[in-house]
Amino acid sequence: MRQRLRAPIVLPCDPDCSVLRDAVVDIEDDGRIGYVGPLADAPGDEPITDVSGVLLPGLVNTHAHTPMTVLRGMGGDLPLLRWLQEVIWPAEAQLSAADMRAGMLLGSVEMLRAGVTTSVEMYFHLDELADAVLQTGGRAVLTGGIIEAPGFTWRSLLDDVSKLIDTEGLRFGPGDRIEIGYGPHSAYTLTPEVLTEVAAAAHERDALMHIHVAEAALEDAAQRSSHGSVPKLLESLGFYGGRVIAAHCVHLSDEDISIFARHGVAVAHCPGSNAKLASGIARVRDLREAGVTVGIGTDGPASNDDLDLWEEVRLAAMLSRLSTMDASSLIAPDVLLMATRMGAAAIGRDDIGALEEGRWADIVHISTDAPAFSAGVDVPDAQLLSNVVWAAGARQVQDVWVAGDQVVRAGEPTRVDRFEAQAKAGAVTQRLLSGG
Amino acid sequence: MRQRLRAPIVLPCDPDCSVLRDAVVDIEDDGRIGYVGPLADAPGDEPITDVSGVLLPGLVNTHAHTPMTVLRGMGGDLPLLRWLQEVIWPAEAQLSAADMRAGMLLGSVEMLRAGVTTSVEMYFHLDELADAVLQTGGRAVLTGGIIEAPGFTWRSLLDDVSKLIDTEGLRFGPGDRIEIGYGPHSAYTLTPEVLTEVAAAAHERDALMHIHVAEAALEDAAQRSSHGSVPKLLESLGFYGGRVIAAHCVHLSDEDISIFARHGVAVAHCPGSNAKLASGIARVRDLREAGVTVGIGTDGPASNDDLDLWEEVRLAAMLSRLSTMDASSLIAPDVLLMATRMGAAAIGRDDIGALEEGRWADIVHISTDAPAFSAGVDVPDAQLLSNVVWAAGARQVQDVWVAGDQVVRAGEPTRVDRFEAQAKAGAVTQRLLSGG
Repeated sequence: MRQRLRAPIVLPCDPDCSVLRDAVVDIEDDGRIGYVGPLADAPGDEPITDVSGVLLPGLVNTHAHTPMTVLRGMGGDLPLLRWLQEVIWPAEAQLSAADMRAGMLLGSVEMLRAGVTTSVEMYFHLDELADAVLQTGGRAVLTGGIIEAPGFTWRSLLDDVSKLIDTEGLRFGPGDRIEIGYGPHSAYTLTPEVLTEVAAAAHERDALMHIHVAEAALEDAAQRSSHGSVPKLLESLGFYGGRVIAAHCVHLSDEDISIFARHGVAVAHCPGSNAKLASGIARVRDLREAGVTVGIGTDGPASNDDLDLWEEVRLAAMLSRLSTMDASSLIAPDVLLMATRMGAAAIGRDDIGALEEGRWADIVHISTDAPAFSAGVDVPDAQLLSNVVWAAGARQVQDVWVAGDQVVRAGEPTRVDRFEAQAKAGAVTQRLLSGG
Repeated sequence: MRQRLRAPIVLPCDPDCSVLRDAVVDIEDDGRIGYVGPLADAPGDEPITDVSGVLLPGLVNTHAHTPMTVLRGMGGDLPLLRWLQEVIWPAEAQLSAADMRAGMLLGSVEMLRAGVTTSVEMYFHLDELADAVLQTGGRAVLTGGIIEAPGFTWRSLLDDVSKLIDTEGLRFGPGDRIEIGYGPHSAYTLTPEVLTEVAAAAHERDALMHIHVAEAALEDAAQRSSHGSVPKLLESLGFYGGRVIAAHCVHLSDEDISIFARHGVAVAHCPGSNAKLASGIARVRDLREAGVTVGIGTDGPASNDDLDLWEEVRLAAMLSRLSTMDASSLIAPDVLLMATRMGAAAIGRDDIGALEEGRWADIVHISTDAPAFSAGVDVPDAQLLSNVVWAAGARQVQDVWVAGDQVVRAGEPTRVDRFEAQAKAGAVTQRLLSGG
């Protein structure tokens, strides 16, 4: 065994969102979890590392374009279309593979420091992004963006993903840290023929597909008038059947929700991005009641802006309550599970997202030295979960392990220099600001 | 002069939300601001204290019940009525003056560490609360809660406030840190006769009145059926005319908004509390367009839960965009001003809320050593403001001055021991949990 961590509180994120008291988490030599449970029942007589706060699984960010850290705040708060057309797209056209790597490195550091151990990305130059993630020690599902736009051919983007999977495997790196998947951008940027080809390639390789669906009202209205709806269109194309995660899904009809439920399509709910860009509020309660698995995502840091999934967790609860006018819609344990166990399930992974024997040891240690925990942890379970979700969050993340390796210690990354990561990403931003 | 602070960026929070570069803020011996502007134009040849980040005015939290830190997370996420009736009200009935003091002390520390220098409170035992605030060095407008409920008589609560003002003055303490006002709870807990008496006492003393208005749909519907609406009722009672801040105001008609505009009634917008409790989204854009001054508030930490006004600032922007479906509704400078200059104006104060000659030197220093500022501060103004509001926030608060005294240094309070404050408040919570 590599390490036995003991804490006053362990939140394994099992389906009941149990609270274990005076419990241990065993990290095996292969980076997976051995035992999780009360110290009294722990096997063997291992030396113990005491941590004083709360242990929980690393969070899963189910929708991100993390390399966009280099574009953070650019264009300020321009209205969406002007922001995209005048600022973001021209800037993105200037990004080299190395620039994207720099953006990914910084974003990976940010996420790890916030206790987000896995992110589901849609971007380009996956080999460079994988390098960055392997360097920080994080975990990512990198889906290669596939679009039709000036400067890109969808065919080469699709083939690059397939080739990467065929040479490196679907998952690679120590602790299976990198998974590769397909990121067909959306039904409004790709023809039905392209979507069909992407699906065929993904199904053949059991790879994840990651697509934007029904994000903005205008885009969605156009789709509906031509195809009924995007969920219907995708169904007619044979897109489903493998692992599919659809991001945003703000504008779904009851029928769309049934289609997703029937085909096991999961949803990446991005409450902050959808609010900031005035897209709307996704029907999370209806999706969950229909049996759709819903995870939580930050979206890209150019539009959100801080990759703090904890803030999205609270937003998910708040916006669900506003849209249902029910203060008990999505309580603390619900949203905590959405950000961990359900987030993993949403991308078809049962090897992360919970502290359970056999899963990877992706673990977050939250310090309880904070006003949020002034009464300590000897409080009722509901109060403890409430304090973790509503009052602690990213600020209290102290230590993080991925596949059993400690990648954050006392709030700072262990494998990369944060200041260097900031400086490299900042240099890209400055170059863009000065005209390319 | 006490001190000349020099920073690469100063955000004075003037009406244009200007960004000053390489500027200084002079703190005079009396704790007020002397000069704010470019170093090149600064008067005299004073020694300079260099700070490396961003200086801005301390934030103003326009609606709080801060002593409720001792109840934080209690009852978890129970539905509103069960939470109040089964958990919060019974617990509050157990709180002594000393307990409220302990809760206020911890909350004041929390707010100062987040860069919130002023809070507008509605609670009880104002003398104890004032002591706590004077101890941390923060600033507060303490309005005494006036309610009719078992264990309280509205008359004694009202008289206590009047007596305190008549003996201590409307404002007292070094740097006028404490202001006393009246907190008639609401029109659904007080009779018209009581509201009239409170208003008379407040008008006589030019004191602030701080009242809950139209927070929850159910309560509001009842008010409407009996009085037309609360804004109308208050108008008919002669409640207006002095300084009035109405908290929440989720359910206002066009006519209600006109009434507020006509009488100079300000609104404390509490987006997080209103979302978490499923109350709804206040019509902030309509209020502002009608000329109503709108500040931002956290509400009590038992329902919100962390007194982080920066999160409310972002929520204010996000919820305004959702409710108007317009991504340019409330941009970064708008919400930053709402949390500073407009927050001060909302309570009739022109001596705080901005870095301007003659105002109190309530100053926050935000560190730019963070991913939010990876490109440094040499970026366009809109991008800088966006980064401050959307990506930095409370996490980056390093130093805080109130009336020129440094009350937070390197993220920790200078005048009180944070751990002691946490322990004292925690002991109250533990006593409540164990039944009294």
